[in-house]
Amino acid sequence: MTVGRKEYRDAMARLGAAVNIVTSDGAAGRCGFTASAVCSVTDDPPTLLVCVNRSNDSHAILRQNGVLCVNTLTASQQHISPLFAGVGDLPHAERFAADGDWEQLETGSPALHGAAVSFDCRVSHVVAVGTHDVFFADVVAIQEGDVHEGLIYYGRRYHRVAAG
Amino acid sequence: MTVGRKEYRDAMARLGAAVNIVTSDGAAGRCGFTASAVCSVTDDPPTLLVCVNRSNDSHAILRQNGVLCVNTLTASQQHISPLFAGVGDLPHAERFAADGDWEQLETGSPALHGAAVSFDCRVSHVVAVGTHDVFFADVVAIQEGDVHEGLIYYGRRYHRVAAG
Repeated sequence: MTVGRKEYRDAMARLGAAVNIVTSDGAAGRCGFTASAVCSVTDDPPTLLVCVNRSNDSHAILRQNGVLCVNTLTASQQHISPLFAGVGDLPHAERFAADGDWEQLETGSPALHGAAVSFDCRVSHVVAVGTHDVFFADVVAIQEGDVHEGLIYYGRRYHRVAAG
Repeated sequence: MTVGRKEYRDAMARLGAAVNIVTSDGAAGRCGFTASAVCSVTDDPPTLLVCVNRSNDSHAILRQNGVLCVNTLTASQQHISPLFAGVGDLPHAERFAADGDWEQLETGSPALHGAAVSFDCRVSHVVAVGTHDVFFADVVAIQEGDVHEGLIYYGRRYHRVAAG
């Protein structure tokens, strides 16, 4: 049995995920893009992963800078997601100017003020899988926002989930 | 700056995720456990990843069998999650007997009838990161359920999300 790309994409729409803006800043420049393929790997040491298409124009910047920040959006930040997903086709610098208050934690990568949480990271290694690179990253600083209402992408729509 | 394990776990509770039962069956036996650290890697070829603690008693079984099935729960299947998370301390065989209708797709790994979606996979490679192994797996068969209401774990609670 073989699984086609469309069948796989339709099926993956049934696996809900948080919506994150992954950013980087450094010698190679500043970038940011919307990503749902983020997950925790281990808490010892605190490590997460981000899957990035090598055709994504942020890919080379992430690789060269060697740092990234995962900013997990709250429900009230939903409008930032399409901006960093390339809707409107803004250059990276203008995405940051267009919306959100951006600060820095440890690595210099942009951290979104009021995000549910920001994980500031140093990339430890990268594994190539098909069209994508998987970035494994050590978490070096964390910032939690005040707002606790989460944003989930599921069934190709945004959903709001309340925290307990 | 360093990030402690508790700080990291508390922060990760703010990154919502789907709830999956990851299963395997083969020469090394049958196992199943609850996992949220699952994400899509690429659709070319269809590939996902699952992060598994090497101290998880399913770990050796997955490695030896070389196959796994990711079963993404619907909201109405929430009760299956604690069973496979070890609540009640049931041996693996009894977890399957205790709840759910289990069938097989391509690899022989248990697929949960009525799951939002089941991804039946062959493990292609494994990368060790700290305490965990990351299993990269080629998706060889997919089964979608009729029910479209998703289950998300966020803020250490379950949430129901409707599909569009």
